[in-house]
Amino acid sequence: MLSAHSSLREKTLTLDTLNPQVKAVEYAVRGPIVIKAGEIERYLEEGGTKPFSEVIKANIGDAHAMGQQPITFLRQVVALCTFPELMDSPSFPEDAKWRARRILQGCGGHSLGSYSASPGVECIRKDIAAYIEQRDEGVPSDWENIYLTTGASDGIMTILRLLVSGKDSSRTGVMIPIPQYPLYSAAISEMDAVQVNYYLDEDNCWALDINELYRAYQAAKLHCQPRVICIINPGNPTGQVQSKKCIEEVLHFAYEENLFVMSDEVYQDNVYTPDCQFHSFKKVLYEMGPEYFNSVELASFHSTSKGYTGECGFRGGYMEVINMDPEVKAQMVKLLSVRLCPPLAGQAAMDVIVNPPQPDEHSYKQFRQEKSSVLGALADKAKLTEQILNAVPGIKCNPVQGAMYAFPRIFIPPKAVEEAKALGMQPDMFYCLRLLEETGICVVPGSGFGQKDGTYHFRMTILPSIEKLKVLLGKVRDFHIRFLKEYSALE
Amino acid sequence: MLSAHSSLREKTLTLDTLNPQVKAVEYAVRGPIVIKAGEIERYLEEGGTKPFSEVIKANIGDAHAMGQQPITFLRQVVALCTFPELMDSPSFPEDAKWRARRILQGCGGHSLGSYSASPGVECIRKDIAAYIEQRDEGVPSDWENIYLTTGASDGIMTILRLLVSGKDSSRTGVMIPIPQYPLYSAAISEMDAVQVNYYLDEDNCWALDINELYRAYQAAKLHCQPRVICIINPGNPTGQVQSKKCIEEVLHFAYEENLFVMSDEVYQDNVYTPDCQFHSFKKVLYEMGPEYFNSVELASFHSTSKGYTGECGFRGGYMEVINMDPEVKAQMVKLLSVRLCPPLAGQAAMDVIVNPPQPDEHSYKQFRQEKSSVLGALADKAKLTEQILNAVPGIKCNPVQGAMYAFPRIFIPPKAVEEAKALGMQPDMFYCLRLLEETGICVVPGSGFGQKDGTYHFRMTILPSIEKLKVLLGKVRDFHIRFLKEYSALE
Repeated sequence: MLSAHSSLREKTLTLDTLNPQVKAVEYAVRGPIVIKAGEIERYLEEGGTKPFSEVIKANIGDAHAMGQQPITFLRQVVALCTFPELMDSPSFPEDAKWRARRILQGCGGHSLGSYSASPGVECIRKDIAAYIEQRDEGVPSDWENIYLTTGASDGIMTILRLLVSGKDSSRTGVMIPIPQYPLYSAAISEMDAVQVNYYLDEDNCWALDINELYRAYQAAKLHCQPRVICIINPGNPTGQVQSKKCIEEVLHFAYEENLFVMSDEVYQDNVYTPDCQFHSFKKVLYEMGPEYFNSVELASFHSTSKGYTGECGFRGGYMEVINMDPEVKAQMVKLLSVRLCPPLAGQAAMDVIVNPPQPDEHSYKQFRQEKSSVLGALADKAKLTEQILNAVPGIKCNPVQGAMYAFPRIFIPPKAVEEAKALGMQPDMFYCLRLLEETGICVVPGSGFGQKDGTYHFRMTILPSIEKLKVLLGKVRDFHIRFLKEYSALE
Repeated sequence: MLSAHSSLREKTLTLDTLNPQVKAVEYAVRGPIVIKAGEIERYLEEGGTKPFSEVIKANIGDAHAMGQQPITFLRQVVALCTFPELMDSPSFPEDAKWRARRILQGCGGHSLGSYSASPGVECIRKDIAAYIEQRDEGVPSDWENIYLTTGASDGIMTILRLLVSGKDSSRTGVMIPIPQYPLYSAAISEMDAVQVNYYLDEDNCWALDINELYRAYQAAKLHCQPRVICIINPGNPTGQVQSKKCIEEVLHFAYEENLFVMSDEVYQDNVYTPDCQFHSFKKVLYEMGPEYFNSVELASFHSTSKGYTGECGFRGGYMEVINMDPEVKAQMVKLLSVRLCPPLAGQAAMDVIVNPPQPDEHSYKQFRQEKSSVLGALADKAKLTEQILNAVPGIKCNPVQGAMYAFPRIFIPPKAVEEAKALGMQPDMFYCLRLLEETGICVVPGSGFGQKDGTYHFRMTILPSIEKLKVLLGKVRDFHIRFLKEYSALE
């Protein structure tokens, strides 16, 4: 009713007057298919019927929503920080209290309710630096290079903001892997940078091929100024874990071409296959010698949302920035200060991740058990997903070496491709919508992440419980076979 | 050492190549004077001596850092949400448990660790809508118009992002009060919009004068396209509370000129003088009749950081957006979804603020007592600050009707103005630096908020305890008298 009335008057803000860069943003992980899934969920709740009883959301890396339990110790520390009266409670262990007290001592008025300094609470920054040194076997980390963030996304946006001006006469090129996590393409659209795609090699377990990097760079130089290269390792959505050699090549390339390196390492704890190992870009850079280590500008991102904690809702994260020009750093701190600070509970959660219970502490055993239970289950589910998918005719799935997703390639028969195009839809969007409508399974079309022309994929998380995952994969298999039959030319 | 080495090689990101819009950003609340204050603090900690023993930070509205205690009930609910095992604890009241259970039921996997929908947890959005309806005496509020945010700043940035494209050929004008909270000017710089100043009337208790609004608008139209007007009520840094008549005039103006209205109402609970009352822009718009209420595009912002809770570190907040074009709304949700969601602990804190204990509930008495104690003390400190400052020759302070700041006008003798200019400094920056160096008191120069040319001010919070505030104000008085003497021509 209201809209009929108000439509008499022209609005200030319409699709025509909206900032066109906002319009250009796409974010498939919460895109049209997820909106559709929500509608179906509501329809079922209201008593509607479908060929399935529930929607399974395998679209987003949201572990707790899929039933993963929080790490007890992390929640104890954050609860103690939130409500310090609990310090007197005998049901909280001393090692958690000790950490909470230490965090609160770093907070204004000893309260989680005060702003922290814009780069974060000092003692947490120090804990992160110590963690990085340990992780990287002694490679030095300066706590003043550590900046707490509101999830990793916030840090990534901040660094890109420094590098990209929408007004550049020679526009800034941002090199990103394809397929990529669509935060990158969304940020590039919002900031009006130029997206420079380098394609990961699907036939080689989604490895990064250095020649492809040079190709992409040379091609881009004709129409923009590439200034930054983004890497996601372990890969999202691809699940590959980069070899040390590959990382060396990327860093050498960045050094040669004078590119800023952004390495998204939020899945650093999520490596499942025994023959793979996480190597941080920083450590590899260090091992390449001082000429590299003292010059390549590198920002690495981490988060509370992934790993074995899966604490997405806390919006915790940090970035380590090395070799940044001190004047630029001061400008970055100024920019961060406008948003005041990252959420303190997220900072506290981050602190627990980098400063977990030690073997001589009371909470160690339980922590250890919870952590390995989560990571063990993920490894099992990674394997299971790959195996079941690869047994389906017309689906080919690379090993899920790390992260939280499978990104299988799917064969879509030409007749289905035609039908999708007639509907003005990407073929894999058409496929995923059909999958959702017929099975209740919500996955994200590969087109939302980017893929080679003529290839089709979807991204699914491996986060549902093993029982649910088996059901899900079974349904995907049956659907795919039906779909192939329906659209096959053999009739 | 490292920098000497690495300076041999040109950096990718330097002050020259940095996004110029970032360079243009200024944010005085955490600007140079606050950096200086931090240095002095460290110097004192390391045993250095100064004419004072501690730095008093009256630069930022950070209540807990100044010793304000959290509201027990709010922290109980958030702690319960964080660590649901506490539901079994007899030391937590049932009314807190009930709320925590309800919030968790709205979370994926019943965990604060899952992402919420990008606009926030549904039941919290509904609670906020109910709160607004009650606050505005029955004016309808649709929960689907409510968007949780990461502090109010995040909401303000989001709305501006929709309105402003740095690429506009006819550039977007954003009308802001002067003096203003520098988030606005910072956002305008970052987005490359045009800042359109309308000056508040210092001689009339910082009231907004509608003629000044028309003047500013007409002048701006010559060189940009004004599309949005920002209002801060109660005012930051000015502390004025707008009359209903004034709000009506602003809304009528916005209606006539087809401007989007952004009303920053984060201090809605901070009104101290008995002759003032908070009127929400939305309620006033409603009372102006359906022609206005169904057409003026309005976003109103609120936060957990101010009011009587002062929970800055939780980064909680919301915005209510009315009359936004549905297609634009869908675009906004898409934009929000890239950042995934606001922190869940902040959302929970916001829920307690809009859904506090009721008279028939166990926690009511304590809540009521804590709330009125905070607000009563703030009212006392507002009065005290005004009185003491006005007794100082050369300082003139308007009544602090609301918010958390005094913004006194200070007389700076011409000789001091000259000396400042010789140092390349704003005179009030010079004054505030001297104040800091000589007394340890950290306040923010008026130039960081904007002021009429030739006038000088500073902003100080009224948040220190009453004892500390008296000491602080005494020191300001003594300093100001010394300063006047030093630079007066009478020698």
